[in-house]
This record gives sequence, structure tokens and C-alpha cells, in this order.
Amino acid sequence: MTESRPMSSLIIGTPAWLDDVVDWRASYATDDDRMRLAIELARQNVARGTGGPFGAAIFERESGALVSVGMNSVVRLHNSTLHAEMLAIMLAEQRIGSYTLHGSAIEHELVSSCDPCAMCLGGILWSGVRRIVTGADRADASALDFDEGPVFPESYAYLESRGLTITRGVRRAEAVAVLELYRRQGGVIYNA
Amino acid sequence: MTESRPMSSLIIGTPAWLDDVVDWRASYATDDDRMRLAIELARQNVARGTGGPFGAAIFERESGALVSVGMNSVVRLHNSTLHAEMLAIMLAEQRIGSYTLHGSAIEHELVSSCDPCAMCLGGILWSGVRRIVTGADRADASALDFDEGPVFPESYAYLESRGLTITRGVRRAEAVAVLELYRRQGGVIYNA
Repeated sequence: MTESRPMSSLIIGTPAWLDDVVDWRASYATDDDRMRLAIELARQNVARGTGGPFGAAIFERESGALVSVGMNSVVRLHNSTLHAEMLAIMLAEQRIGSYTLHGSAIEHELVSSCDPCAMCLGGILWSGVRRIVTGADRADASALDFDEGPVFPESYAYLESRGLTITRGVRRAEAVAVLELYRRQGGVIYNA
Repeated sequence: MTESRPMSSLIIGTPAWLDDVVDWRASYATDDDRMRLAIELARQNVARGTGGPFGAAIFERESGALVSVGMNSVVRLHNSTLHAEMLAIMLAEQRIGSYTLHGSAIEHELVSSCDPCAMCLGGILWSGVRRIVTGADRADASALDFDEGPVFPESYAYLESRGLTITRGVRRAEAVAVLELYRRQGGVIYNA
């Protein structure tokens, strides 16, 4: 290494196409509405070549207001932690100005185009969202050689024991289609 | 909310005291040397009031060269994902310019003052480090009401099945002393 120390900061940004795709003022009333957005983020991320086939968004649970979005940014930003869910959590907490989305009168939920990996499942627990909604499942991701890591049935049970509600399989076929699009394009499997 | 959309980027930085504490040019030859640094980062983070009692560092496994450090930054940066390990991973990958620390001739290892939580255990797997060394254990953290989330014996076995080597309990008493310092200071338990 030529430098004696690394940079002391890093910048994490969303792709430039984001505002072409996301309607920040819409109210996303139903699980279907919310999942459509998460999947569209995944699809655009693949179509525009900015990352893996995963999208996520955080909403105010009652109002359906959109708080933040995330899309897989691992390859684009040289950062293995930047799964869609993690980016959505970071941006939501920055917006709220708190390290937790729990604790105010407004409850939040995270909607992800795919079941979270072990890292994201833990990250979701710490974020303070009260509900998770997912599309594609672990087997769908594994079929593409994406590994979810050490996630077990007890992992979900752990989150439920902490009061989180989990709804899986929403618009699954549509979410899987984005995984397949990524495979057809020969996208990088960054954690195989 | 008054704004129609969140910021599209965020900046993650280390505390200003870092270069007073870290010798970037030293070679950290042994597990003890490496753990001493991780624990010192944790201690300084508590003593200087910049975060939770956890520190981590990533080294080149053979040479002992220091690649990056991290310290818990959850409260300071309003970001529940910024555990010490995660920050060290992000900064190491930025320095290397790759989303993985695996794949070159140089192997890396992550040294953490405490057993990783569920999020960090997954994050460590994706980072491509080939070895983990930890100080305090889950029970030590739990005694302070820090939750590690859904980590099971099978979680460690999963990482080992992927070729990671795991060494726990290095300088544990010293790492626990930092946890106790944090408790005496009345530090925030941000994921209780």
C-alpha cells in the first residue's frame, strides 16, 4: 500500500436515475403498492446497470408516506454492506435524524423485493422498523447463486419475539422476474 | 415531514481523535497486538463520548499491516448500521477499491473487541475477510443489555463452512472492562 492511512470518511449516494423512478409525494396505501416500488427499484438497478437485482423502501406504516429507498449498491460503491435494505435504513435514519425508526408515534415498515440476508435481517432488527414485507424468497435468490448466509427459521422467530411482523411472498413472481433479468444480463454475483 | 424527498447521499466519518490513537505505520504482529488496538478504539470511543464500547480493525493477515479501523458510531451518526465492524469493513473496502477483501493474494482478518451481532456476522461473511478474532463475548454484552440478535451456534458454523477461521476470547477481561466503563458512564444502550 502506498498510503499510510485510509480516508477517514466515505460518501454513500444513490444513483442519478432515482428521481426519474420514484414519486416521493405519492401515498403508498397497500402492500402491493409498496412492493411495486421496491421491485421497480430492483428492476431499474438492473436495467441501468447500477447494481444487483434488489430494491427496498421504508414507509410510514399508517400513512403510506415514503421515507427512503435503497437499491443494491455493492459493486457500484465498492461496499459489501450496501444491500438495498441497509441503504434504505441509513437514508431513513438520516432523514429522521435518529438512530432508530422506533420510539415516536409513527411506526415504520421496510419492504424489500427479496427475503433479507443475515446481515440485513440483523440490520432490520436494529433499525426499529416494526414490520417487514418481502417478495422473492431465499430459494429464489439461491437459484441465482446469491447466498443469504446464516438465516434460520429461528432468525425470523427472534424478530417476531421482538414484536416485528413479517409478511413474505408479496408479488413474488414479479420480484423473481427481476432476478432472472439480472441472470440473463450476466450480472455479477458478488457473494457467491 | 416538511421535505418531499430525503437527501440522496450520506457521509460517514470517523471521530477527530482517531489519528491521536492509531499508529497507521505499525505492524501488528500478534493476535494480542491486534486486539489491543481494537480494545483501545473501544475505550477511546467511550472515554471521548463518541459512541458505544466497541472497536474493530482489519489487518493484512500475514504482514500485520493495519488496513482500517472502526468504532461504534450509531448514536454519533444517527445510523443503527454503524457498528464498529461494519465501519471497518466499509473503510477497508474503500481503501482497497473493491467490494471484497478476498480474491487477491493478500488475506485479511477482522479483529473486534466483542463477538459480532447478527448484522455484523453476516456483514463479515460478505466482506471476504478470512478470519475473525473477538474479545468479549455475547454474554458480556448482554450483561450490559446490548442485544446481539439472532446469532446461533449454527451461525458461526455457517461461516466456518465458508472457510472462515474464528478465534474468540482474546484479551477478554480487558474488553469487558470497556463495557463496564460504558455502563458506569451511563452510556446509551441503543438496541436494548
